[in-house]
Order: sequence, then structure tokens, then C-alpha cells
Amino acid sequence: MKTGFIGLGAMGIGMARNITAAGHLAGVYNRTLSKAQQLTDELQVAAYHQIEELAADVNLVLICVSADADVLAVVEKLAETVRPGTIVVDMSTVSSDTAKQAAALLAEKQVDFLDAPVSGGVEGAKNGTLAMMVGGDFEVLEKALPVLESMTRCIMYMGCTGSGQATKAVNQIMGAGINQAVTEALAFAQAQGLPMEKVIEVISGGASGNWFLQHRGSTMTRGSFAPGFKLVLHHKDLKICQSMAKKTDTATPLVDMTVADYERLMASGYGDEDISALYRLKR
Amino acid sequence: MKTGFIGLGAMGIGMARNITAAGHLAGVYNRTLSKAQQLTDELQVAAYHQIEELAADVNLVLICVSADADVLAVVEKLAETVRPGTIVVDMSTVSSDTAKQAAALLAEKQVDFLDAPVSGGVEGAKNGTLAMMVGGDFEVLEKALPVLESMTRCIMYMGCTGSGQATKAVNQIMGAGINQAVTEALAFAQAQGLPMEKVIEVISGGASGNWFLQHRGSTMTRGSFAPGFKLVLHHKDLKICQSMAKKTDTATPLVDMTVADYERLMASGYGDEDISALYRLKR
Repeated sequence: MKTGFIGLGAMGIGMARNITAAGHLAGVYNRTLSKAQQLTDELQVAAYHQIEELAADVNLVLICVSADADVLAVVEKLAETVRPGTIVVDMSTVSSDTAKQAAALLAEKQVDFLDAPVSGGVEGAKNGTLAMMVGGDFEVLEKALPVLESMTRCIMYMGCTGSGQATKAVNQIMGAGINQAVTEALAFAQAQGLPMEKVIEVISGGASGNWFLQHRGSTMTRGSFAPGFKLVLHHKDLKICQSMAKKTDTATPLVDMTVADYERLMASGYGDEDISALYRLKR
Repeated sequence: MKTGFIGLGAMGIGMARNITAAGHLAGVYNRTLSKAQQLTDELQVAAYHQIEELAADVNLVLICVSADADVLAVVEKLAETVRPGTIVVDMSTVSSDTAKQAAALLAEKQVDFLDAPVSGGVEGAKNGTLAMMVGGDFEVLEKALPVLESMTRCIMYMGCTGSGQATKAVNQIMGAGINQAVTEALAFAQAQGLPMEKVIEVISGGASGNWFLQHRGSTMTRGSFAPGFKLVLHHKDLKICQSMAKKTDTATPLVDMTVADYERLMASGYGDEDISALYRLKR
């Protein structure tokens, strides 16, 4: 499919490179044009000056921007010139409601929409090893699959529109809870004067073992918090989770605690550090 | 070494069988004699009627009982007849202070002590695949190693007396936090109406992945809470963690939350279920 890509942040650039390598990318749009032009020189694809221009020229649109309002602004512009039969895939992490609004807007133009947030971070985007959680029609996903597969190691179809974002929210809630678990346990270990590398090794092998302990335990206890996954971004995601949980009246005490902790850290200037900087508050 | 084993609970029985298979076990003591006699018929080792009798007859004593008071009571009786040069290894999960008290009591009799709590549960005890965290003198551990290795897959030397227990406490704190993380995230997922097996699969593969999600996620969301690790026992361990944390003035909000949650569950008669029964409070 003739593919246009919107949003060349740290994630988007890696994705766009992988789609180009698979021979699908026609052109890109980025709010800051210079960034788009840099990439188009490298990849030899078009740099569109307007979203409307991109929309008129392709039959698959991939979006990777930051927040709910950004996604809706992009979709509104797309809707002006997009051709019927086009597929729009949003890979941003936003709320299920935003996904439903975007889908409804585009349905009026006979355009299909998938919410398809990813996990795996900047490294996953670069290496084409993202995990993608998809909501929308399965038949639409099947059509977009050759392009989506060029940047993922795993694509999981979750159900109707919004269920991709809901699954991503589950992932982010789990991440918040595990960050709290690992930082609390390791701060206790340090207060006990234990040899931290041995603690991390022996616990990793058992029923309390987890990815975050294995990959961030050692750096956090040495006071190193280079991202990784930026704290401000996880904070943004958790605010989305809070609003989703409110609607189903689901309690999320760990999320609430983490949002408050992250806000303390952001106020102290640590927002651009890895989420493991939560350890700063636990020592 | 001529080994005596004290405490034939669900863990102790598995351990005693593995030590016998390796040819080290001389005899056992259990508070309820009939349980000891059952096992001695099977393993063809002695059933001691008194701890003092066992102590006088062996040069390595292994202890696997329940609580701090039990360990100290056993050690006091051992001290009456134990021979100089004997090694006493306590595999119960108790506080670092109890380990230090036991070590001091036995040192007066020229007897060495190791605190060596294990993780891996009843299955690990049965299969000889426990992980053991050891505090005390390294030279003493080296002497006891052939016996200890017959029931473990991994022995980690953590440092001076009490550091085995401190490491086990870290493990139990991590387990409490992860239980909170997984139950909160999966309750959110169920409230969102997501297909749970797919949620568990896709999240397990990423940066929020963890052992507990993979091994308990599916059963808990189906309302099945067979142990596994009994909630009352984790509650007991977390009370120890709280008292240890208090002494170093370390905050443990997840532990405090989990203790309160477990107490609600225990009051409702769920104490003998697996710790994943925490999910009952999150739905």
C-alpha cells in the first residue's frame, strides 16, 4: 500500500526507516518541516508540507504523535482530503475515547481506522521489534498487515475500536505498579546494606522476577537514570489511564500514587529521566 | 555430614527427601511425632523424640519451621546438648534480628549458624530447585554446601549473619508489590472488557512482563486461587518486613497496603488461598 507517515519523533523516525526498508513508504509529514526534510533526504521519499496533501496522495496513513488533542487535530485535517477506502492507523498512546472519536470522524468519509499503540520503546521502533495492540475491524488489519509487520515483532488483535488503546493502558498501569514494586524493594535492600548485584540476581530468578528489575535494577541503585522510557511520557499515559478507570469506576491506587510521585519528580526537574528515577524518592 | 532435620511441614518434607536421596540424612524431629514417624518409615532414618536428642547425635542441623518464636525455641533446646563444631542452618523465613539472636546463642557453644531462607515454594522443595539466600561465615557455608546443594538449584552467599533473611525480605516485598501491580492492571483490563488471555500474552512479552503475570494472571482472572503460595504465609513474612523497615526508617507503602488487603481477605476466610486472591478485592 502507498503509505504516508505523520509524526517523526524518536519513535516515528525508527518506524519510518523500517517501513521504507520494506518498500512501502511514499512520504512523510512532520509539524517541524526541517525534521521531515532531513529524513526524506536520507530515505528518498516525499516531504509533504500539509497533512491534507499527504492524505490526498496515499491509501494508508500512519500516525505517531504525542497526545489525544494531537491525534484529533491530525484526523480532522486528514478528513478534509482523504480518499474513500483509505486506512488510517494511529500508533500514538491516547485514550480509547479518542480512538472512537477518530474512527467516527473518518467513517463519515468511508475511511477505516485502527487504534494500534505499540510497546517496546525507541529501541523497539529502531529495530522493528515493537509489540502492537490493535483495535478496529479485523479485515482492515489484514489489509494493513504487510506494512505494520515491517516494524513489529508481534501484532495482537484485541477487538473493536478502542481496545488497542485499552490494552496499552493495561500495560502502562502494570509498568507503574512494577516500578513501585522494584523501587520499594530495592530501597529496602539498600537500607539493609545488602550487595545489590547479588540481590538483583537471586530475586530475578524466582517468582518475584520481572523485566524491569533485570534491566533497570542495577542502574537505578547506582543512581543512573538515562532513558529508556521518559518519566514525562509515562506520566502522560497514566493520566489517560486514570480518566479511563474513572469511567468504569475502577480503583487504581498504584497509578494514583505513581502520578503523584512523578509530579514531584517533574517539579524537581527529573521529567526527562527514565521512569526508574522514581527510585530517587524511595532512598 | 551427619544431618538432622527439624520441621516437617510442606516445605520440610520435600527437603528431607532430597537430602536423604543424596545420602546425608541421619534423622528427623517434628513437633507432631506421628508426622516424623511416617517419614522415617519411608526414608529409613531415625525419628528423634526430643530436639536435645537430635542435637547430641549429628554435626549438621537443618531447621525449617514457621515463625521467629519457633526458631528461637528450637535453638534454645539445641544449645543444651549440641556439640562444639556443629553447624546449624535455619531455612525458615524470619527476621534478621532472630538470625542474629540465634547465632549469638549458638556461638556461646562454639556452634556456627547460617540464616538460609529459601524461595521456590513447595514445588521447589519437592524438586530440589529452591533458591537459597545465605548469611553467616562463608567458610561455614562451604562446609555445609554438599548437603545444601542437594535441595537447591542456586545458593547465593549474601554476607554476614542476617543478610540471608534481609534478602528474603526484599524478595517478599517485591512479591507484594508485583501482586498489587498485576491485580490492579488486570482488574482494569477486565473492566474494559478486554480478552484476558491476549492481554496477558502481549504484556508478558514486554517491559511490564513478569513471572507472576505469566503464572497467575490467567488463573486469577478466572477466579481460581489454589495455592501456590498461601496468603497467610506471605502476610506473616510482610509483617517481618514491616518491622525490619521500621528500624531503618524505610517507607514501604506497597507492603503496608498489601498487609491491610490480606487482613481483609483473611477475615473473609481466604487466608489459605494463593496470594493472587488479592484479585478478589480489585474486581
